[in-house]
Amino acid sequence: MRYCSQCGSAVQMRVPVGDNRPRYVCPSCGTVHYQNPKMVVGCLPEWRERLLLCRRAIEPRYGLWTLPAGFMEQGETLQEGAARETLEEAGAQVAIGDLYTLFNLPHIDQVYLLFRSRLLNLDFAPGTESLEVALFSEQDMPWMDIAFPVVRETLRLYFRDRSQGGFGLHSGDIVRASGGLVRRYRIALR
Amino acid sequence: MRYCSQCGSAVQMRVPVGDNRPRYVCPSCGTVHYQNPKMVVGCLPEWRERLLLCRRAIEPRYGLWTLPAGFMEQGETLQEGAARETLEEAGAQVAIGDLYTLFNLPHIDQVYLLFRSRLLNLDFAPGTESLEVALFSEQDMPWMDIAFPVVRETLRLYFRDRSQGGFGLHSGDIVRASGGLVRRYRIALR
Repeated sequence: MRYCSQCGSAVQMRVPVGDNRPRYVCPSCGTVHYQNPKMVVGCLPEWRERLLLCRRAIEPRYGLWTLPAGFMEQGETLQEGAARETLEEAGAQVAIGDLYTLFNLPHIDQVYLLFRSRLLNLDFAPGTESLEVALFSEQDMPWMDIAFPVVRETLRLYFRDRSQGGFGLHSGDIVRASGGLVRRYRIALR
Repeated sequence: MRYCSQCGSAVQMRVPVGDNRPRYVCPSCGTVHYQNPKMVVGCLPEWRERLLLCRRAIEPRYGLWTLPAGFMEQGETLQEGAARETLEEAGAQVAIGDLYTLFNLPHIDQVYLLFRSRLLNLDFAPGTESLEVALFSEQDMPWMDIAFPVVRETLRLYFRDRSQGGFGLHSGDIVRASGGLVRRYRIALR
């Protein structure tokens, strides 16, 4: 951020009066420009014993598989956002159920909220952000080609819970470890 | 939003290429300025049979009682944010526990995430945003002076759950009803 979105003046980074951390502040009109983490909402679409995954047609992680998920939009609920993303990315209609995983990704200022869901029919088709969309049983899961650690961890928990006969909410942190040529992540469940 | 925060040019509202909804777009540098809902994080600080509430020293709802809660900040987890807000508003140290209520407030583009928590000691004191901080038992609750519907509903669920011997996650929507002189809200639990 370099300019005030209200008046166009150059902003400064400083601690506003009565605040305790640096913000972008406009010295001309006084607007404080707060920046806050974003929510990524999505779901695990279930069809009998299988789950619907999307193969990404966009960066990052082009060509890898993921659950339908994306940034929550203004004016919608978490559940509406999860259903919208599923429709956009997989052309699939779902009934959104309980929140299943809640992960902090503080290194990128994101919180993932992934819901269990029920696929309503088999009329799915890849949206513009997907190369293909397909149902996978546990033994067919493309474990080596999952796009993101948060999705891999959610799928791992899902199949573990299913084998144990019950699904609860899982909460945790996924943080990118610094250093090294290969990206590594620290996953801590609560 | 009137000006591009990257280059200072006047922005336009239009649907970016490959998108499906209007955004603020800079015709000069091409930046798309996404706007997304914010998370409000807080907790229910428990001390034996009582809960810690704060009386607001700021608008909106000056002088009314609330749970410690506020906007999640960049670089922190939900739980860190809830603990930070409790320290800032109530001078209180807590151990954050399970997520207790998850409410969509789509009319103001907010999602509330309130956690159960354990107050670690009685060394609390009002922060700059609070007039006073106090522990309340169920029979002492200032029900007529609770600042926000989301807090009132969370407290109502809490005491109901406690009387029934178990706490689960509650999820729902709180939407301001239009019309009328008195503000009214529609509360729908899932």
